[in-house]
Amino acid sequence: MEYTLKALCALIPEGQLSGYTDATLCGIASLEGAQLGDLSFLSNLKYKKHLALSKASVVLIPKAFEADPLPNQAYLQVPNPSLALAKVCADIERTLTPAHRPGIHPSAIVAPSAVVDPSAYVGPLCVIEAQAKIAADAVLQSHVFIGQGAQIGSRSWLFSGVRVLERCCVGSDVRIHSNAVIGSDGYGYEFHEGKYLKLPQIGNVIIEDWVEIGANTTIDRGRFGATHIQEGTKIDNLVQIAHNVVIGKNCLIVAQAGIAGSTHLEDYVVVGGQAGIAGHLNIGQGSQIGAQSGLNHNLDPKSFVRGTPALPFMAAHRIDILKQRLPDLFKRVERLEK
Amino acid sequence: MEYTLKALCALIPEGQLSGYTDATLCGIASLEGAQLGDLSFLSNLKYKKHLALSKASVVLIPKAFEADPLPNQAYLQVPNPSLALAKVCADIERTLTPAHRPGIHPSAIVAPSAVVDPSAYVGPLCVIEAQAKIAADAVLQSHVFIGQGAQIGSRSWLFSGVRVLERCCVGSDVRIHSNAVIGSDGYGYEFHEGKYLKLPQIGNVIIEDWVEIGANTTIDRGRFGATHIQEGTKIDNLVQIAHNVVIGKNCLIVAQAGIAGSTHLEDYVVVGGQAGIAGHLNIGQGSQIGAQSGLNHNLDPKSFVRGTPALPFMAAHRIDILKQRLPDLFKRVERLEK
Amino acid sequence: MEYTLKALCALIPEGQLSGYTDATLCGIASLEGAQLGDLSFLSNLKYKKHLALSKASVVLIPKAFEADPLPNQAYLQVPNPSLALAKVCADIERTLTPAHRPGIHPSAIVAPSAVVDPSAYVGPLCVIEAQAKIAADAVLQSHVFIGQGAQIGSRSWLFSGVRVLERCCVGSDVRIHSNAVIGSDGYGYEFHEGKYLKLPQIGNVIIEDWVEIGANTTIDRGRFGATHIQEGTKIDNLVQIAHNVVIGKNCLIVAQAGIAGSTHLEDYVVVGGQAGIAGHLNIGQGSQIGAQSGLNHNLDPKSFVRGTPALPFMAAHRIDILKQRLPDLFKRVERLEK
Repeated sequence: MEYTLKALCALIPEGQLSGYTDATLCGIASLEGAQLGDLSFLSNLKYKKHLALSKASVVLIPKAFEADPLPNQAYLQVPNPSLALAKVCADIERTLTPAHRPGIHPSAIVAPSAVVDPSAYVGPLCVIEAQAKIAADAVLQSHVFIGQGAQIGSRSWLFSGVRVLERCCVGSDVRIHSNAVIGSDGYGYEFHEGKYLKLPQIGNVIIEDWVEIGANTTIDRGRFGATHIQEGTKIDNLVQIAHNVVIGKNCLIVAQAGIAGSTHLEDYVVVGGQAGIAGHLNIGQGSQIGAQSGLNHNLDPKSFVRGTPALPFMAAHRIDILKQRLPDLFKRVERLEK
Repeated sequence: MEYTLKALCALIPEGQLSGYTDATLCGIASLEGAQLGDLSFLSNLKYKKHLALSKASVVLIPKAFEADPLPNQAYLQVPNPSLALAKVCADIERTLTPAHRPGIHPSAIVAPSAVVDPSAYVGPLCVIEAQAKIAADAVLQSHVFIGQGAQIGSRSWLFSGVRVLERCCVGSDVRIHSNAVIGSDGYGYEFHEGKYLKLPQIGNVIIEDWVEIGANTTIDRGRFGATHIQEGTKIDNLVQIAHNVVIGKNCLIVAQAGIAGSTHLEDYVVVGGQAGIAGHLNIGQGSQIGAQSGLNHNLDPKSFVRGTPALPFMAAHRIDILKQRLPDLFKRVERLEK
Repeated sequence: MEYTLKALCALIPEGQLSGYTDATLCGIASLEGAQLGDLSFLSNLKYKKHLALSKASVVLIPKAFEADPLPNQAYLQVPNPSLALAKVCADIERTLTPAHRPGIHPSAIVAPSAVVDPSAYVGPLCVIEAQAKIAADAVLQSHVFIGQGAQIGSRSWLFSGVRVLERCCVGSDVRIHSNAVIGSDGYGYEFHEGKYLKLPQIGNVIIEDWVEIGANTTIDRGRFGATHIQEGTKIDNLVQIAHNVVIGKNCLIVAQAGIAGSTHLEDYVVVGGQAGIAGHLNIGQGSQIGAQSGLNHNLDPKSFVRGTPALPFMAAHRIDILKQRLPDLFKRVERLEK
C-alpha cells in the first residue's frame, strides 16, 4: 500500500485534519506497533494511553477527542475511527484482490440444467448440479459444490471448498468461508428395537441477504421445513446450527458455539464463543449469552446471561466470586461449630 | 409433494384412519405451524395441547391416544408417529433426490489399481488413490478423496468433500457428511530437548456398518492399531474423535463433543453436545454424559453424569441449585457469626 | 510389517538387548493387547504392571528399569521407549506410504505466474493461484487450494482439502491436515445504524517452520498485520485461532480449543482441549491452561490454571471438591441456626 495523506483524506471526506500534512503512508498498525509511515487509529478509548507514544504518521481519532499530534504526525478526526479505517482497508483490499473476471472456469463441472448468470465467476473445479441457480456477480472461488436445485444470490461470495447442498437457498451479498457446509442432514433418529433408525431430513436451509458464515461452520437442513438464518446475521468459524433452528436478523454467533434443533433466536441476539443452547427454546430479542454458557431455558428479550447452567449475568458473576471464597466459608462454619 | 390420503395410507399400512377421509396433502409441518393441506404428527405428548388447535389436514397420532379430529381433519393412529412420518419423508426423499446413475464421472481421478464396483457412483472431481476399493452401490457425491488402500462398503454414501485417508475402512450403509475427515494423524508428540518430536501415526480408522458421521467431524487414525467406530453408532457434526478411541455399537455422540485418545465407550453410550471426555478411560455400557460435561474418570455401566468435573446427574443438579443459593448462605453464616 | 530382531536393533542402535534374541516381529501393540510376534513398549511407568503379563515378543523398556523378560521374550533397553518406537513407526510409514513422485498432476490447475519447485508434488485437482510459490519437496495431496500470492515452504505436507488463502505464508516442514483453513476472514464488525458493517480483513497468516495443524482447524487472517504461529507449535483438530493472535514457539493447542482475537501466547504454552481464551490477553511463557477452561485475564509465566473462570490449578481443584460438599455445608448451617 502507499497513500499520500491527500489520497487518504479523499477516502475519508468526513475527516478533519490537524498537524503535519505531508506524510506518505505505507502500512497500518496498532498505536503501539506503529512505525513512521504507518496509519493507526484510536477507536476504543481504553487504549488512549498509547496515543501520545505512538510513532504512527497519521492517527484516526474520534471527533470528540481532544489531543495534539506530535511533530511530524497528523491526526484525522472522524465520527467513527474504526469505520474510517474500514474504508481505507476496503480500498486496499480492492488492490490486493483484483475482481474476478466473470465466467465459468473450464475445469468447473456445471450441469446443463443449471443456470449461471454470465456476470458470475465460477472458479476452478467447482461443481454445480442440476437446476441450481447462480445469480449475477456471485463468486465461487474454487472446489465449491452447489447441490441440485440450490440457489446462490447476487454478489454472494463462496470461498474455496464451501458446500451448499441440495435445495438450499443463499441470498444476496452473503459471504461463506472455506469448507463451511450448508445443508448437511439434521441429527435425528428414533430408537426402535435396539437400534437408532434414521429420520430422513428432507427440509433445506434458507440464508437471507447480508449473512456471513465462518470457515468450517455447519448448518443442518430442516427435518422438514427450513433451517433459517435471517438478514444481516454474522456467524463465526466452527459453529454448529442444528436442524430447524431459526436465527433472526442481525444476530452474532461467535466461534464454536452450538445451537440445538428447533431453537429460535429473535433479532439482535449475541451468542458468545463455545456457548451451547439446547433445543426447542426461544431466545428473546437482543439477548446476550456469554462465552461458554450452557443455556437450557427460554430467555425474555434483552436477557443477559452466562455460565452453565446460564444465569443472569450479575448473579453468575456474584456466584463465581463466592465460589472462590468457599474454602474460607467452610472454615468459618467449622469455627462456628466449635 | 402431493399425496392423496389413500396414497398416504398405502405408505403406512399399520395406520388406523378416523375422520374426514378426502384430504390431499401438499406439505409437512409441526402441529403449531401446519396449515390446511399439511400432514402433521403428535410424537412427544408434551405437545398434545397443540393438537386440538392444529390446522393440519391429517395428523399421525399414537395408537393409545384418544382424541377426535376436527371436521375436515383426519387422524391416523399408528404405533409410532415419528417412524410413520419417517416413512413418508423417505418416500418424498426418493422423489427429491433421484438415484444416481452408476458409474464414474469423467472428471474423477481413479488410480488404475483402485477397484470401483460398476454399480457405485463416483461423482465429479473425486479422487480415488491406488489399491482403494469402492463396493457396490456406494455413492461419492463430489470432491471426495479416498486415500491409498482405503475401502468403502456397499451402499455407503459420502457427501461432497469427505476425506477418507490411507488404509481406513468404511463399512456398509454408512453415511458420512460433507468435509468430514477420516484418518487424520493422531495428536502425539514426545518432548525432547526443548522441542516436540512427532510420533508417527501409522494405524488406521475402522468404521463399521450403519454408522453416520456428521459434517466437518474429524476422526484420527490410531498411533498403531485402529481407531474403531462400531456398528450403528451415530456421530453428529464437528465432533473430535482422537487416536485409538473405541466407540461401541449404537452410541450417540452429539455435536462438538470431543473424545481424547485411547478412551473406550461401550455400547449404547450417549455423549451430549460439547462434552469432553479425557483419554484412556472406560465408559460403561449405556452411560449418558450430559451436554458440556467434562469427564475425567471411568464410568460404570448405566452411569448418568453431567457437569465439569462430571458428577452423577442428581448430585450435579443439587449442587447447581445450591450454588445459586450461595449468596444467601454467605449471609446466613455472617448472621451466625454476629 | 515384518522385522527380524536384528533389523529392529539396527533401527535402534542405542538399545541394549536381553532375553530371547530370535524373534520375528509382525505387529505393534500395547502391553495388554500384544500377541506373540508383536513389538510393545513401556513408556509411562503407570502401566508397568502390564509388563510381566504381556505376550509381546519384544518390549522396549526404559534404561533404568530393571526386569527380566519371559522365556521367548526379549527386552530392548533404551533411553526413551516412546522415541525408539517412533523410529520403528517412521520406518514402517516409509513402506506404507511410498514417496510421491515429484511433479504436477495433469488435473491440477496452476496459474501461469505461480512458481512450483520441480521437486514438489502437486496432487490431483489442486488449485494454485497467481503468484503463489510452492518450495522444494512440498507435497499437496489432493483438492488443495493455494490462494493468490500464498507461499508453501520446503518439505511441507498439505493433506487433501487444505485451503491456504491469499497471501498467507506457510514455512518449511509444516504439516497441515485435511480441510484445515488458513486465512479465513477475521470476525470483525462495527455496529452502525442497526446493522453490523464488515471490517475488511486484509492481513494474512504466517506459519513458521515445524508447525503442525489439525484437520478442520481454522486460522483467521489478521485485520491488518498477521496472525502468527511460531516455530514448532502443534495445533490439534477443530481449533479456532482468531485474527491477529500470536502463538509463540513450541506451544500445544489441543482439539476444539479457541483463542479470541489479538491474544498473545508466549513460548511453551499448553492449551487443553475445548478451552477458550478471550481476546487481547497475554499468556506468559510455559503456562498451562486446563481442558474446558475459560480464561479471561492475563497469565504470568508458568501459570497453571483451569476452570471457568480459570483459577490457579490447586485453588480450582479445592473449590471443585468443596462444591461437592455444598449439600453437607447447607445442612451444617441449618443445624447451627437451630
